[in-house]
Amino acid sequence: MRGSSLFAAIAVFILSHSVEALYPINDLAVTPAMGWDNWNAFGCSVNENLLLSTAEKIAALGLRDVGYQYIVLDDCWSLGRDKEGKLQYDPAKFPNGMKYVADQLHSLGFRFGMYSDAGTYTCGHYAGSLGHETQDAETFASWDVDYLKYDNCFNEGLSGTAKITSERYRTMSDALNATGRSILYSMCNWGEDYPWKWAQTIANSWRMSGDIYDSFDRPDPRCPCTGDEGYECAFPGFHCSAMNILNKAAAFIHTSAPGAWNDLDMLEVGNGGMDDEEYKAHFSMWAALKSPLLMGNDVRVMDAKSLSILNNPAVLAVSQDPVGSPAIRRWRYYVNDTDAYGQGEIQMWSGRLSGGDQLVVLLNAGNSTRSMNATLADIFYDFGPEGTAPEVKQGWDIHDLWANRMDYATAQSVLDGNATSNVTRFYYNSTKTSYKDGLAANNTLLLGKLTGTVEADGVIEMEVPRHGVAMMRLRKHS
Amino acid sequence: MRGSSLFAAIAVFILSHSVEALYPINDLAVTPAMGWDNWNAFGCSVNENLLLSTAEKIAALGLRDVGYQYIVLDDCWSLGRDKEGKLQYDPAKFPNGMKYVADQLHSLGFRFGMYSDAGTYTCGHYAGSLGHETQDAETFASWDVDYLKYDNCFNEGLSGTAKITSERYRTMSDALNATGRSILYSMCNWGEDYPWKWAQTIANSWRMSGDIYDSFDRPDPRCPCTGDEGYECAFPGFHCSAMNILNKAAAFIHTSAPGAWNDLDMLEVGNGGMDDEEYKAHFSMWAALKSPLLMGNDVRVMDAKSLSILNNPAVLAVSQDPVGSPAIRRWRYYVNDTDAYGQGEIQMWSGRLSGGDQLVVLLNAGNSTRSMNATLADIFYDFGPEGTAPEVKQGWDIHDLWANRMDYATAQSVLDGNATSNVTRFYYNSTKTSYKDGLAANNTLLLGKLTGTVEADGVIEMEVPRHGVAMMRLRKHS
Amino acid sequence: MRGSSLFAAIAVFILSHSVEALYPINDLAVTPAMGWDNWNAFGCSVNENLLLSTAEKIAALGLRDVGYQYIVLDDCWSLGRDKEGKLQYDPAKFPNGMKYVADQLHSLGFRFGMYSDAGTYTCGHYAGSLGHETQDAETFASWDVDYLKYDNCFNEGLSGTAKITSERYRTMSDALNATGRSILYSMCNWGEDYPWKWAQTIANSWRMSGDIYDSFDRPDPRCPCTGDEGYECAFPGFHCSAMNILNKAAAFIHTSAPGAWNDLDMLEVGNGGMDDEEYKAHFSMWAALKSPLLMGNDVRVMDAKSLSILNNPAVLAVSQDPVGSPAIRRWRYYVNDTDAYGQGEIQMWSGRLSGGDQLVVLLNAGNSTRSMNATLADIFYDFGPEGTAPEVKQGWDIHDLWANRMDYATAQSVLDGNATSNVTRFYYNSTKTSYKDGLAANNTLLLGKLTGTVEADGVIEMEVPRHGVAMMRLRKHS
Amino acid sequence: MRGSSLFAAIAVFILSHSVEALYPINDLAVTPAMGWDNWNAFGCSVNENLLLSTAEKIAALGLRDVGYQYIVLDDCWSLGRDKEGKLQYDPAKFPNGMKYVADQLHSLGFRFGMYSDAGTYTCGHYAGSLGHETQDAETFASWDVDYLKYDNCFNEGLSGTAKITSERYRTMSDALNATGRSILYSMCNWGEDYPWKWAQTIANSWRMSGDIYDSFDRPDPRCPCTGDEGYECAFPGFHCSAMNILNKAAAFIHTSAPGAWNDLDMLEVGNGGMDDEEYKAHFSMWAALKSPLLMGNDVRVMDAKSLSILNNPAVLAVSQDPVGSPAIRRWRYYVNDTDAYGQGEIQMWSGRLSGGDQLVVLLNAGNSTRSMNATLADIFYDFGPEGTAPEVKQGWDIHDLWANRMDYATAQSVLDGNATSNVTRFYYNSTKTSYKDGLAANNTLLLGKLTGTVEADGVIEMEVPRHGVAMMRLRKHS
Repeated sequence: MRGSSLFAAIAVFILSHSVEALYPINDLAVTPAMGWDNWNAFGCSVNENLLLSTAEKIAALGLRDVGYQYIVLDDCWSLGRDKEGKLQYDPAKFPNGMKYVADQLHSLGFRFGMYSDAGTYTCGHYAGSLGHETQDAETFASWDVDYLKYDNCFNEGLSGTAKITSERYRTMSDALNATGRSILYSMCNWGEDYPWKWAQTIANSWRMSGDIYDSFDRPDPRCPCTGDEGYECAFPGFHCSAMNILNKAAAFIHTSAPGAWNDLDMLEVGNGGMDDEEYKAHFSMWAALKSPLLMGNDVRVMDAKSLSILNNPAVLAVSQDPVGSPAIRRWRYYVNDTDAYGQGEIQMWSGRLSGGDQLVVLLNAGNSTRSMNATLADIFYDFGPEGTAPEVKQGWDIHDLWANRMDYATAQSVLDGNATSNVTRFYYNSTKTSYKDGLAANNTLLLGKLTGTVEADGVIEMEVPRHGVAMMRLRKHS
Repeated sequence: MRGSSLFAAIAVFILSHSVEALYPINDLAVTPAMGWDNWNAFGCSVNENLLLSTAEKIAALGLRDVGYQYIVLDDCWSLGRDKEGKLQYDPAKFPNGMKYVADQLHSLGFRFGMYSDAGTYTCGHYAGSLGHETQDAETFASWDVDYLKYDNCFNEGLSGTAKITSERYRTMSDALNATGRSILYSMCNWGEDYPWKWAQTIANSWRMSGDIYDSFDRPDPRCPCTGDEGYECAFPGFHCSAMNILNKAAAFIHTSAPGAWNDLDMLEVGNGGMDDEEYKAHFSMWAALKSPLLMGNDVRVMDAKSLSILNNPAVLAVSQDPVGSPAIRRWRYYVNDTDAYGQGEIQMWSGRLSGGDQLVVLLNAGNSTRSMNATLADIFYDFGPEGTAPEVKQGWDIHDLWANRMDYATAQSVLDGNATSNVTRFYYNSTKTSYKDGLAANNTLLLGKLTGTVEADGVIEMEVPRHGVAMMRLRKHS
Repeated sequence: MRGSSLFAAIAVFILSHSVEALYPINDLAVTPAMGWDNWNAFGCSVNENLLLSTAEKIAALGLRDVGYQYIVLDDCWSLGRDKEGKLQYDPAKFPNGMKYVADQLHSLGFRFGMYSDAGTYTCGHYAGSLGHETQDAETFASWDVDYLKYDNCFNEGLSGTAKITSERYRTMSDALNATGRSILYSMCNWGEDYPWKWAQTIANSWRMSGDIYDSFDRPDPRCPCTGDEGYECAFPGFHCSAMNILNKAAAFIHTSAPGAWNDLDMLEVGNGGMDDEEYKAHFSMWAALKSPLLMGNDVRVMDAKSLSILNNPAVLAVSQDPVGSPAIRRWRYYVNDTDAYGQGEIQMWSGRLSGGDQLVVLLNAGNSTRSMNATLADIFYDFGPEGTAPEVKQGWDIHDLWANRMDYATAQSVLDGNATSNVTRFYYNSTKTSYKDGLAANNTLLLGKLTGTVEADGVIEMEVPRHGVAMMRLRKHS
Repeated sequence: MRGSSLFAAIAVFILSHSVEALYPINDLAVTPAMGWDNWNAFGCSVNENLLLSTAEKIAALGLRDVGYQYIVLDDCWSLGRDKEGKLQYDPAKFPNGMKYVADQLHSLGFRFGMYSDAGTYTCGHYAGSLGHETQDAETFASWDVDYLKYDNCFNEGLSGTAKITSERYRTMSDALNATGRSILYSMCNWGEDYPWKWAQTIANSWRMSGDIYDSFDRPDPRCPCTGDEGYECAFPGFHCSAMNILNKAAAFIHTSAPGAWNDLDMLEVGNGGMDDEEYKAHFSMWAALKSPLLMGNDVRVMDAKSLSILNNPAVLAVSQDPVGSPAIRRWRYYVNDTDAYGQGEIQMWSGRLSGGDQLVVLLNAGNSTRSMNATLADIFYDFGPEGTAPEVKQGWDIHDLWANRMDYATAQSVLDGNATSNVTRFYYNSTKTSYKDGLAANNTLLLGKLTGTVEADGVIEMEVPRHGVAMMRLRKHS
């Protein structure tokens, strides 16, 4: 094999053993989880109606069938513990109980995500699960929960080495497995103590940074650790911009693999803090890096632009590609045309896709549209150094993954509930045919638009808008 | 909710549950503690007379009734342990014993603060409490102590991870609670091992940096950790300037909440190392960030300027606001007009106040007076990104919190013991009416002076003196 | 002794006690191990035929007898454990079993290296040895294994302090020793938790950085820790260039000693990512720093240039010098003529060799050929500061260690299997006469070419090609 | 008290309690230890004759009576352990045994220092004391040892937190105390895990950096950790220049106190790597910072310049001042006239001396002589900020501490063994009268030369040579 490396071996293993998930903690998250979580848009304002009405809307907008399957209830649902120590839901918010919510979601074709915390309290100061892991896992299983987001607030100082932190999170992992129910385990310890080094044997995903905020690149003192070694972060904080998180991820994103993913935090698409190009860039990078994709907006008031980002089949096919290989940053340059926050840089990322295709993303985080280019030598760097890879010595078709995005009028018709048959030109139903099977069948919805070619030893050149991306799938000349 | 975040959930919880202190270690420090500690001005020169005469002076100057309730005896009061291991006060310094001091202070309307150390020795080399926590807590309780400052010297190497440090400090927390007496627990481990991540469930406040020195911004090699990631500090040291401490706090000040506060160290107001604008800035930032406010000067020789800083009701109402939400730094820029120490920067901080008001502080740490401005979009950033918050779309009254400061003549008359009735124009008695109630009643003493307005999408512009602040309360147009 | 220092004492001990290996874990690796490992060129594509055919080729090319003795099977050979927990080889890859491979290699005059991992899984996700150390060591011994590469993937968070990591690696060290078989123990924990501080009493060598990639100096985000303190690296990563590894090693390479070596990772010579000068520089520095020298290319398709690098006796005599003293960097300067990756610097390294000789390497990592020079004062810095060493006060002969490299025609004849007798002019057989004995006998093959002299207090000046080295042995005027 | 601070309290305690050593581990090192250690000049080449002949020479040169009392045998004296595990001296090196060496040294008026290591091996690879602490301490006591240097090599990974390291060193501290013999405990763990935070209760001194090398400011990759936060050093290394060590010490030197000192490593005066001004600067700073002063040269071949540095009573009176308060760096500026190593900076240090005197050191680490000045406001900064200290408001006499240095002719006569009576003009006998008593009696030998005065609010201005110091004692106008 060319471009060998330790983690490259993982890919070899996957391809040669036909496994689904790589790590045997369970059979879940073979591709990054997709769904919706209430936190970014609603915070603590949770209740049964919010979840169920949102789920119905997600289904109605066709988002369930493009893959958003998990409806995740975040913090603030609890009322503490009863005399036996069992967690109690707040009946004012959940009058029919959690099992009812799960049943309703299941009947709508969704899976139900629950939240707790590996500390004394949750971040919102409700009862945490530290010291109650077995009982709480059993409670969640009894409620037919399918997913657990497990937070890190008020952890009683149990951090500081990988050993201390991993032991705390392993306890819940073991407790979930002991229930006998398949529950996706989503660690949320904000990257403390380097979970990308050890969480693969514990969890299906792990947060790798402080909390996201709805900003493309605004610095915030509450999200420290901003330098080149920013991934080493003893206090990850929150209010982290999309670019901040992306740049931290560059150092270790390759540690993701099927069944075990670095989680770049929930999406902000539709929440209003970025413009359309910025949201496209945010969504593209989250998909390219194989982060879980949990919508974080109020889908009941979604606009057409947001819908046509979140349902883009050509980008989702990158996220859900069966190879499960995150894109890697090939280069990064600072540029002079900086924005109001003093930020300005450009990057190129690429990565393997199924069928021998290759993903390329040109990211323009400068302050104006610019022409960017990428050589095949850089794009296929991991297949052989300095342009020696055979992939560099042949021509490729270039598929633009945003060119066939659903037009706003059609998106608006979907939002208005009067979608015309035109919608099928843009819409992929992954419930019917998985992305894996669709890709294997060369479903054109998943391939974007063929917009050009690049010859052997060639260079791809694209106009890339301010704070935006060009996202491409390269496919061998047929 | 808009501007959601993990810690924002805490505020929601507080507002919706009508709790007093957020964390149940006790019911104290619902707002940051106010009082006096002898260390900054007197160091080891402690005795009964100093404490009682100071307390009487604090009461006489009206400072008790603006809120300075705790009289804290710092290090050097001890004479070691007796045969049973019980801590002995030095009878040369405290001829009537500690219980007597407590009784006297209580009769004067104060609470009594005591000092010990989570090590073998105190910093001044008296007997420490490490290994004696239960016995010492009982001793303090038997003396009717209301507050314990718990230092970190000579800790026998018990640091290096949050786990090691938190276990050491938790032992005393548990011992204090076990006494049955309500004792405010003030951790003083200088920010080692990130107490802002774990101390909320142990203590009412925790120091977050090395010791303050009476300087606005002078660098000192004994206070290392000065870069952008300076909050990560394995050796916090001492001789830290006010600006040094402030800049460290920016990364984690949001982890404070009612009952559990980041402590920026005792005040230097009146000790002579800063000018009036610098002391105003120091005091303003300590109030805005919800640090405990412990006076550190010799109040028996206070000057008029210092008194009229320390008793400013409009600033104290920020400190003691029931929402308990520390101001957040919205931006920071380095400037070219640096001072003799090579320092120069400007900052804007804002934060939520009760009644829907918003705090704004423009901090000019440049070397000359300058015009500074702040946009509503930045001021209300946490309520919605990029100017999308509804608060940006309306007009606000601007109340200057320093404009109605007590004039020097009146302050001098108070110091001289012949205050005229004019004093009531400047003086707020929080013993009679709490700040919470006063704010709810729109007591004008707490609101500063209405000096202007800002329209929707507008900008506030202020002249700010060298090494000074403009501190404002924004209130919706009535 | 002049130029004394803590580690200098080690050399004194060696020379005065006639020991072979310094540390008594075993009697192996008295000089750095030499051999071949399949990983860099083949990754997981391993089988019996690859190992045996490669071994035969290595012998046929004369590389076995220049010293490449260990044939190391890397990851992906396993099929998990049987019911008794014993590791099973994959019979599809190793139809005759591992003992057979060992027997064949032994009969060919090689030693057999095996791979496992101090975690739950190997990096390629096969069964790891964590918790199975005793059983696995016995299995390896029963297969007549001579060498164990012990990797660090999926270690269950058992890192974060030297104590945690060293305990994990010590377990296997003890297990290997308990088998009674001499097995070289090659730790591969990527420099985590500073193995150069503690691994000498556990292992024969330890990796000190993230994995190498076949590039001279290209930065890669997956190999972070690039600054002056880059050796402090909590996440070593991979895709590290030769220059990246070299610069990390500069801080601690002096901790190597006979029997216990810093391992700079396997060679990339012949894999295609560097040009001839770059490969010469890479090979020279690995030899000068006493790294193990494991070829990493497909020797069955080797080209003449690569062969004539890998078999250069004058450079190998540096690697295998009995003094075992790694070269030390005497200076480093950044230069302006940077390459396409923005990199540009020059360095000088020197170190002690047997017989009172001194090694000098001028490294030009600038982007064009340049004249470089080195003073005797700098070259002999450790023998006395500021030019005070007696060695500075005498003249030296300069032997160029690359000048007598095998010419390409001869090398090609070797590769073609029709080597003429001319080959003996370039070829050293260390099986017949060890490097130690050859050096003692002043075998001219080991001394390069006498190209000049330098007088007392003098300066050596050399033209050094872009991304290349001048490598010299200084010998006292006879 | 003015200028109060946590550590200032220590000084108060000392002055008010008339204690000798501050920390009760023993009654030794009330002032920093003075003596000689063989390592810097002789490394492993140790034997009875070297120690005894050196001791005789030290006595003959009058250096014993200026205070150099400890003769410390460093590494390489051992021959391992006998069957009972007792450490064996090497009889080839010590034919009469260690007790004999101690007896001889004691009879010459010296104290005997011994060496071991808190690891499996010493740095020179002899038997270490880890796991043998009690037995070895008893052995040392049985040999009448007065001092133990305890090194850190091969510590089996027992480092990484202050807890891990301090436990290892505490074991030997307890063992030494248990012998009943007063043995000065000199920790040598190179500053790992911040001993200045915890070693005061364990040891009489602790090394705070990597090993010194005989260079004023030459950088060396083997001594990493060079930035502003260089004191945070996970791998202290060796070959550290005097300036490197000094700059690390600036952050924490104030943690020294009588009985417990930061050790800046042994002196290089006389070893040839620095010029006279550089050695004066090195010696001055080590004295000012209250480092132990262990000569590191071959005193049998000392030159006149070195002798007249090492025996300067005015500088030694700073080192041995009973207040025991290390000088503090008041400012540091980088300058443009850098030397061959690219280094250039200037600094001012000051500190308290007994009798109300104040030490001032102007350090010129620029590349040429320059005029430097210091304000009283800066000199007395710790007595009150911004020039508010009363000390600033009065005039002072300036005593130059190098002006009365022994002239070279006289020094040469001492070295030649034919000292004339003139020597008494320069020579102080501290065996007869301690520095403490001499200072109390205003012995003029201890005060340098009165060279000028500075008025209230004034400025001291001095010509300071390249890589040199001006060192002054300020005394109130009489």
